[in-house]
Parts: sequence; structure tokens; C-alpha cells
Amino acid sequence: MKRSPLAPDSFPLLAPIKGVGLATVSTGLKYQGRDDLLLMQFDEGTSLAGVFTKSATASAPVLTSRKVAENGTVRAILVNAGNANAFTGALGEATVHACTTALSDVLSIPAEHIATASTGVIGEPLDPDDITGFFHALGDQNGTASWQQAANAIRTTDTFEKGASVTLTISETEIGISGIAKGSGMIAPDMATMLSFIATDAGIAQDKLQAMLSRLTAQSFNAITVDSDTSTSDSVYLAATGQSATLESDEELAQFEAGLREVMISLATQIVRDGEGATKLITIDVSGAADDASAHRIGLAIGNSPLVKTAIAGEDANWGRIVMAVGKAGEPADRDKLAIAIGGVAITHNGQRRDDYDETPVAAHMSGDEIHIEVDVGIKDGRARIWTCDLTHGYITINADYRS
Amino acid sequence: MKRSPLAPDSFPLLAPIKGVGLATVSTGLKYQGRDDLLLMQFDEGTSLAGVFTKSATASAPVLTSRKVAENGTVRAILVNAGNANAFTGALGEATVHACTTALSDVLSIPAEHIATASTGVIGEPLDPDDITGFFHALGDQNGTASWQQAANAIRTTDTFEKGASVTLTISETEIGISGIAKGSGMIAPDMATMLSFIATDAGIAQDKLQAMLSRLTAQSFNAITVDSDTSTSDSVYLAATGQSATLESDEELAQFEAGLREVMISLATQIVRDGEGATKLITIDVSGAADDASAHRIGLAIGNSPLVKTAIAGEDANWGRIVMAVGKAGEPADRDKLAIAIGGVAITHNGQRRDDYDETPVAAHMSGDEIHIEVDVGIKDGRARIWTCDLTHGYITINADYRS
Repeated sequence: MKRSPLAPDSFPLLAPIKGVGLATVSTGLKYQGRDDLLLMQFDEGTSLAGVFTKSATASAPVLTSRKVAENGTVRAILVNAGNANAFTGALGEATVHACTTALSDVLSIPAEHIATASTGVIGEPLDPDDITGFFHALGDQNGTASWQQAANAIRTTDTFEKGASVTLTISETEIGISGIAKGSGMIAPDMATMLSFIATDAGIAQDKLQAMLSRLTAQSFNAITVDSDTSTSDSVYLAATGQSATLESDEELAQFEAGLREVMISLATQIVRDGEGATKLITIDVSGAADDASAHRIGLAIGNSPLVKTAIAGEDANWGRIVMAVGKAGEPADRDKLAIAIGGVAITHNGQRRDDYDETPVAAHMSGDEIHIEVDVGIKDGRARIWTCDLTHGYITINADYRS
Repeated sequence: MKRSPLAPDSFPLLAPIKGVGLATVSTGLKYQGRDDLLLMQFDEGTSLAGVFTKSATASAPVLTSRKVAENGTVRAILVNAGNANAFTGALGEATVHACTTALSDVLSIPAEHIATASTGVIGEPLDPDDITGFFHALGDQNGTASWQQAANAIRTTDTFEKGASVTLTISETEIGISGIAKGSGMIAPDMATMLSFIATDAGIAQDKLQAMLSRLTAQSFNAITVDSDTSTSDSVYLAATGQSATLESDEELAQFEAGLREVMISLATQIVRDGEGATKLITIDVSGAADDASAHRIGLAIGNSPLVKTAIAGEDANWGRIVMAVGKAGEPADRDKLAIAIGGVAITHNGQRRDDYDETPVAAHMSGDEIHIEVDVGIKDGRARIWTCDLTHGYITINADYRS
């Protein structure tokens, strides 16, 4: 698979996180010549928060790992790529159980502190024997794999590894937050076949960690859409080892949250940059909506519209399709108050095209690879930012051929 | 534009409707060498029912014609193709007013009994002078154009003219129902850039006519989806001239409604058959849902899923994507009760693939041009039928180039 034209030049340098070890191997289960199984290990005392797909047909790993995140303590996360272990019936749960039990034996850690995530084809039974035989090899690595190797091992149709990191100084202690993600198709609100694993060496009470992750997921992974489809397997994990400093005051937590937001938005937009067939990253800013949730839904109506996305693929400044998408969102709006701008150029006024509208600078903006759409609904002060990509022949080619 | 591979061999024979006259001309406004303006005239005493887009940015013709349908009496419907007169501000309403006033003068009929519909590009001002100059030519035709000429004049990206007709014998009187439609992109629930004009020579009380049209629109035009987008201009009209017989009894009305259903479902599925880039007509039957509305939403979640639609384009029996789409619908569902069949072949059982599942007959079905998906949710008895088409390179090509 050719690297996305929107991919960053190289994988960023990720801060090492004290108390976290990574290991990867190749199982040959689906992919040849590349690693496809990741083990993340965490020292004792690590808190875990998780956000999962809302799908009514959630995968076995999601169903079982939700409980691990609820309990809030983690020692390992096991991730395989190539088979989602979704819609595999009671057998699916049995496979997860067999894997966590075997891993518990190899690593001498409690099985109930092991979370799992799987991504790939839906509906194919996953034989635990195809996975468990590699646990000794994973354990023997003593957690020395790099973040890039980890990001590589969880890819399916991803064309590049996704990682992001910040180093913060909070109350005179250096704190790292590093994370990886995968996902390129089936990306939509309420998440998608996207997985993300973020770790910090800060110590944060589990209830605060969970609240922070849920809040920021709404602004990052739940604010991106590639194709409006939602996967059975979406999971975002945040593990806090507590080995640098324990953060307790509101000010410390706010500083941490700002850094975590940066990491999560970077990972989320990297997923959009790897959107199947994407050639343009589209940022949609909605303001003036009835409230923030309404702004979010209007942004998604634009970001999910095949007609808007194909127009952008064709570099056509077809703002009429944005009007259409706002109209179909089912949210409070008033034609005569709607202000639409593309690339900073105001286009509409009083429910029609501005008299002085000049398409030349907008056409120039459309030919770039980052497109900015602003919609002011003009009613109240609800705001949201949504990211999406264009819809191209590449998307069709990938999805008419690949069985995911 | 090449004729859709799913198009019928020829335009059907439509029953002439007593009290209805048709006329078409070429304005040259956007299209060259074809008619693009339709006048439908109705004798005095004709009742009108209408169903319109729910878009918050509805076009000027929709805003003004809603009132005509509410009043319930019609003498003429004027339809132009090439410019939607949508998002054209107060100017848009002024254009409609100028057109209905001028047409009222030419035909000597009340302006408030004239409905209009426009389809085409959004946001381009429509000069009434580009339209009104053709009213004498339309009037001079004395309503002698054919239904096929009428269906041709309302096309935009449509690759074939759409028409359907039934002749009923009710209480020993012959009654005709004939209708035309246009639409191929921006087709979605709550209608789409689809227009349909249906006429009957039966006489039916306006409130009953409106109730029937609303009820059947839910089962026909609101049960189809091409790309999940909803237009600013969608309109369905039903005019009843009353020149054959007046229908009053419940039995007569039920007979009429059955015939009207047939016409509307034929027109709706013809729109799907002309879905932009479509190579396959997909029928989705949902049963066992919490209620009919829930079944409808599950059907649309499947029918709007780009991943399901691209899999079908690739003739891939990827039922896992149907599982995903059911899961994301946000409706009551239980993995272990879900039964999915394609082409009549049962695939799932107890939340997983059936042990005896054989993909061979399903693969053969996928290679045909009519695909049948059945989903039994297994919870209660809600049912719905949805039609859609596959998502192909053709859709991208059409929409990255055409400004609609």
C-alpha cells in the first residue's frame, strides 16, 4: 500500500514512559513479513482508563476489556492485527479468555489485569493457539521494542505508523505522555476501527483519568470521520504508571490535560491523514450553533457528506453542497444567518452568495492539501471542530477489494 | 452520460390522465440541445397533495410551493432543470413570484394555484427573465407533450427518464395513475434531489389525498438512499383531477392506494437504478426489529454504509460489514439473535458464522445486478424495506466533476 500523500515525513520521536515496556512479533496469522502482535507491559500500580465503541455488535475483546478498564488496574495490553475477533459468538469470548489466561501464566500477572484489542476481518473465528504460542517470545524481549515498532504492529490498511508525544514540566517534574494509534477506514463518530494506546508516567487517580479520557475523546477521536462507519472494535486506552510524579491539584491536572489533548488530537488527525484514499485533510469549524452538541452534529453532517467530500477531491469550491449538508443536519439553522467561508474567504451573506465573492483565492486554497471550512450558523454560540478527508477513487479501490 | 446499466430497456407506456396537459421547451439556461422546462396543466377542480424536503436550507420553490399544496388546489406546476434556485436569498422567492405571476397572466389562472420545482446547481441566482420568455411557447402547445418528454425535461444527471403507471378498475370505472420522477445523486432518507410528479383522474378529498401521499412516501421515496445526502429541493406532488370517478368509500380508497403504492415504489426504485455510478440494485429487508421505525433506521444504516456499498461493488460477500452497520445503527439489537442472509442463503447463527455456511452460492448472487440482503434482528416484529445501490468509481467521477 502506497504511503498516504498526507503522511508526515517520518515517525516522531516519542518520549520513553517509565514503567512501560513494549514487545512485538510476527504471527503470520494474516500478514507476512511484518509484526502483527503487540504486548504492552506496565509496572505494578498502573491505572487504566478506556473508551470503547458504542456498537451493538461490539467485538469480544471490547466486551471483555471494558471490565478491565472499569476495574482500573492494568499490567498488560495485548493487541493483534488481521482478525478483529468480532461476531465470533461465544467462541470469541473463549478466545480472549484463553489468551489472557495463557499470558497471565507466562508473565506471572493476574489475568483480570490484562486488556486486549483486535483489529481486522470481522466474523472469522480466531484460534487462540495462533496467538498464545508467541507469548514466550514476547515476554523474552523484556519490553525493549520501540514505539514505532509498536505502532507498526497494530496496522491493518494503515499506510504509516501513527505516534505522538509531549513532555511536560509540571510542579518541577518532567512528565511524558506518548501514544500510538491505528485506523484508516471505518472511521466515524463514536469512533471507528481505530485503536489508540496512550501511556504516561504521571500518577493520576483512576476516576480523574477516566473522566479526562472521555472528555478529550469527544474532542479528538470522536471528532473525526472518514466514511461515517463505526467499527465493532474501537478502543482508546490511557495508562498512567505513576512513576514520575503524582498529580493531584486542579492546576496540575489542567496542565496534564492540555498536554494529553495535544497528543490525542495529533493521533486523531493522523488517522484522518491516513483515511483510505485521502488526498486532502479537511478541518471544519462550526460556530454560532444552538449549542456545542448541535455544532458537532452540523460539522459531522458536512464531514460525512459524500457530495462535499467528492467536491473537495475534485478541488471544486462547491459551497452549495455545504449549504445542503447544513440543511440536512436536522439542527436549528436559518438560511439567512448562515455564513460560510472556505480558506478564510467569506462566501455567503443574507442567505445567498455575497455580491463581491471572488472564487479565485478559494480555488487556489482548494488545490492545496489542507482545506479549511468555516460555518457560522449565526444563532447562538455553540462551537465544534471536526476533521475529515476527501472521498476519492482510492477509497473505492481499497474497499471494493479488501475484506475488513 | 452513459445510460445506467440498471436502467429498464425502455420508457414504459403511461396511461393518459384526463384533465392533465404537458408541455416542454428548451431554455438553453444550462443544457444545450434538450428540453429543460416542463409545464404541467390541470383542469379546474384538481386537488393537490405534496411532500417536501425537511432541509433547514430548503429552496425558494419548496418554501413557496408548500403553501400551494397546503391550500390543496392546483392549476399548473412549472419545473426547471439546471438551477435549483436554492440558497439564493430573498431574490429566490422573488424569482418564483415573478414566474408564477407571469404564468398566471399567460394561462389566465390564479397565481396562487401554481406550484414550482427547480433542480440543479445550488447558490446561483436564477433570473426570471431566463424562464418567463418561454411561457407563451409552453401555453401554445395545448398540453400535448408526452409523459416521456416531460420526464426528459426534468433530468439533471439522470441517465434515463423515469416513469410509472397503473390503470385500475374501481367500482366499474377505469382510473389511471401516471407519474414521473428525476433523481440520481444526493438521494437519501427524508428525500433527496428527487422530484416526482404524479397525476390521477380519480377524484379524492384533499385531506385523504395528502394522508395517502405522506404514508406512501415513507415506504417509497423515503426508503431509498444513494449517498445519504438530502437535497434542498425534494418535492413529491400528487394531483387528482377527478375527471374519471370520485372515490369515497374506504374500499375504493384502499384499492387506489394499492395502485399508487405500486407507481411510487416503481419510481423510487428507478431513482436508485439511476444512482450515480450504480451497477447493482440492493434491496434490504429488515425484520424482527424493536418496531418498524427501528427496522427502517437499521436498513438505512446498512444502505448508507460506504463499506457495505463498496463491498457489493467489488462483488465481495462481506457480511461482516453488515454486522458492523447493524451495530452502528444505534438501535436495539443482540449479536446472538441476529440472522443475516444474502441472496436467500443464511449466513449467521448464535452470534457467529454458521458452521455449514457455504460462500459459493452467495458469491454467485453477488455477481448479479440485483442484490438481496435480509437481516432478522430477532427481537420483536418491526419490519422495513430499503433500496440502495453500490458505491463505485463512477460515483466519484460524476461528483468530483459535476457542480450540483
